[in-house]
Amino acid sequence: MKKRILTGDRPTGRLHLGHYVGSLKSRVELQDEFEEFILIADVQALTTHFEHPELIHDSIYQVAIDNLSVGLDPEKTTIIQQSMIPSIAELTMFYSMLVTVNQLSHNPTIKTEAKNYGYKEMTYGFLGYPVSQSADITFCNAHLVPVGEDQIPHIEMTRKIVRKFNDLYHTEIVEPEYKLSSVGRLCGIDGNAKMGKSLGNAIYLSDSPEEIVRKVKSGVTDTNRISVKIPGNPDVCTIYKYHQAFNAEECPNITSMCKNAQIGCVACKKLLAEKLNSILEPIREKRAYYESHIDEVKQIVSEGTKKANAIGNENIAKIKEKMHVVM
Amino acid sequence: MKKRILTGDRPTGRLHLGHYVGSLKSRVELQDEFEEFILIADVQALTTHFEHPELIHDSIYQVAIDNLSVGLDPEKTTIIQQSMIPSIAELTMFYSMLVTVNQLSHNPTIKTEAKNYGYKEMTYGFLGYPVSQSADITFCNAHLVPVGEDQIPHIEMTRKIVRKFNDLYHTEIVEPEYKLSSVGRLCGIDGNAKMGKSLGNAIYLSDSPEEIVRKVKSGVTDTNRISVKIPGNPDVCTIYKYHQAFNAEECPNITSMCKNAQIGCVACKKLLAEKLNSILEPIREKRAYYESHIDEVKQIVSEGTKKANAIGNENIAKIKEKMHVVM
Repeated sequence: MKKRILTGDRPTGRLHLGHYVGSLKSRVELQDEFEEFILIADVQALTTHFEHPELIHDSIYQVAIDNLSVGLDPEKTTIIQQSMIPSIAELTMFYSMLVTVNQLSHNPTIKTEAKNYGYKEMTYGFLGYPVSQSADITFCNAHLVPVGEDQIPHIEMTRKIVRKFNDLYHTEIVEPEYKLSSVGRLCGIDGNAKMGKSLGNAIYLSDSPEEIVRKVKSGVTDTNRISVKIPGNPDVCTIYKYHQAFNAEECPNITSMCKNAQIGCVACKKLLAEKLNSILEPIREKRAYYESHIDEVKQIVSEGTKKANAIGNENIAKIKEKMHVVM
Repeated sequence: MKKRILTGDRPTGRLHLGHYVGSLKSRVELQDEFEEFILIADVQALTTHFEHPELIHDSIYQVAIDNLSVGLDPEKTTIIQQSMIPSIAELTMFYSMLVTVNQLSHNPTIKTEAKNYGYKEMTYGFLGYPVSQSADITFCNAHLVPVGEDQIPHIEMTRKIVRKFNDLYHTEIVEPEYKLSSVGRLCGIDGNAKMGKSLGNAIYLSDSPEEIVRKVKSGVTDTNRISVKIPGNPDVCTIYKYHQAFNAEECPNITSMCKNAQIGCVACKKLLAEKLNSILEPIREKRAYYESHIDEVKQIVSEGTKKANAIGNENIAKIKEKMHVVM
């Protein structure tokens, strides 16, 4: 039997190239080896976007289509809408008793994120999202969770909760392991370490060929290279970082040409835009299909959610029985 | 259409005379005027008793029987097991986004309770029980909640959450009102303001006639009254407080006799024990019936829970639709 892997996205906007290299690409590679569950975490999205439910709503479709467009096969992969899985909420309630407020408020990722969002004070839901995330992972007994480095504290917390829970109630919830992504975080095309809609520096999977060209043109290169004639330094060039992420096979050649002033930034950007467009072309084709078959998308998410609910309901019933809260 | 009233108990032990005068008695009186929902709050019980699920389990039965024995009519009253209502957990998750950690940690009742339980640090679940309680009240759109004075901050918080939620998502969740109990808190038979199992000073609805006599005999009277011949002071007598709560019509007579040294404490305690046993006798009869028909008790709770689930599921679906989190 295949091991189960759980991953997902907060539906707070369309997915971009950062998501692609950091996560989506490997999802496609993993879908044969593992039973893959993709959670569209709309309840978790509320922790930061509770005042913008309409954005979350639109993004649920977008994120589902983004996932399908990159090549996730609905025959192999289960796409789940979090808000439609009551057993996650139930498990969150149970887990809440096993984590102290201090553990959460000292969690480095929570602290960093609260700072990034500029929160003067946290909502109860925001403080507790790692608890709810523990429930996301374990409601279906996932074995493996692909993560970035910043998510490791959350998985450690999940493992701790699961051990304590199993110990206390003699349940057999799977203690998940993390699978660290080998890819570092992709910076914005402007060189900013953060990429996002509000910063205007993200290239989306749904961008048109023209938008790709325009955005790549706006990208930041070696600012010391004021003329094509002087050699460039790829190490400080954002465009080169993108070549590394999307055009690895050409990188030795590009490095050499740049350092020897044999290629200018304009031409180098053209190469990148072409490469990105060649990667995005099949994704665009799939997107076009799903956008004109939105009922099929709904059906895929609805069936995935139904499947996940059956698993979650069976597990939560077992857990309640072990906890002896049932009559 | 009758207004809906929601009340309930944490199943962390059998119910005692304090529960009876403070709550159960009025539940019986209210069951004709209102549609009454009694929530057996087993998930909330976990906030303080997560390490003792077996106690919670046993208490679910006991508390259901306590409620039925005092005269709650299952034809009129709906008894609900909280852990079996996923919509409460779901609503709790949504409400979590609208309450800050500071609001909860400054809630006076939370602070007092954490102190009473001797918590050095709070679990996330304990800190958030008022959020979950808000969901308990509103998942079924209850209009009215009978409370003691210490619970008023929780109802105020619930009203605040509901107003903010309705405002944000255009939902129509009923903003509940509280109904303040006219009866003060009954002290322990030893005069201690707190009554509980660990203090050994509680008289339970399920105590036998002999236990009643024994416990009342152990009660504390006016400690200055070292002989029957000297007059007593009812104002400082625990037994007299019980007469006030359970034997009001005899109080003028008892006061006069005590102050004039016409009745001794032994005789006065005998009067109280007789009165309590006369009140408890019909309750005992009903208890005996339900204890020998435990399947009927299960059936009552199961049907109540089913009814509540239908209401909760319909409401949470409406709420999700308004929030636009549904696809």
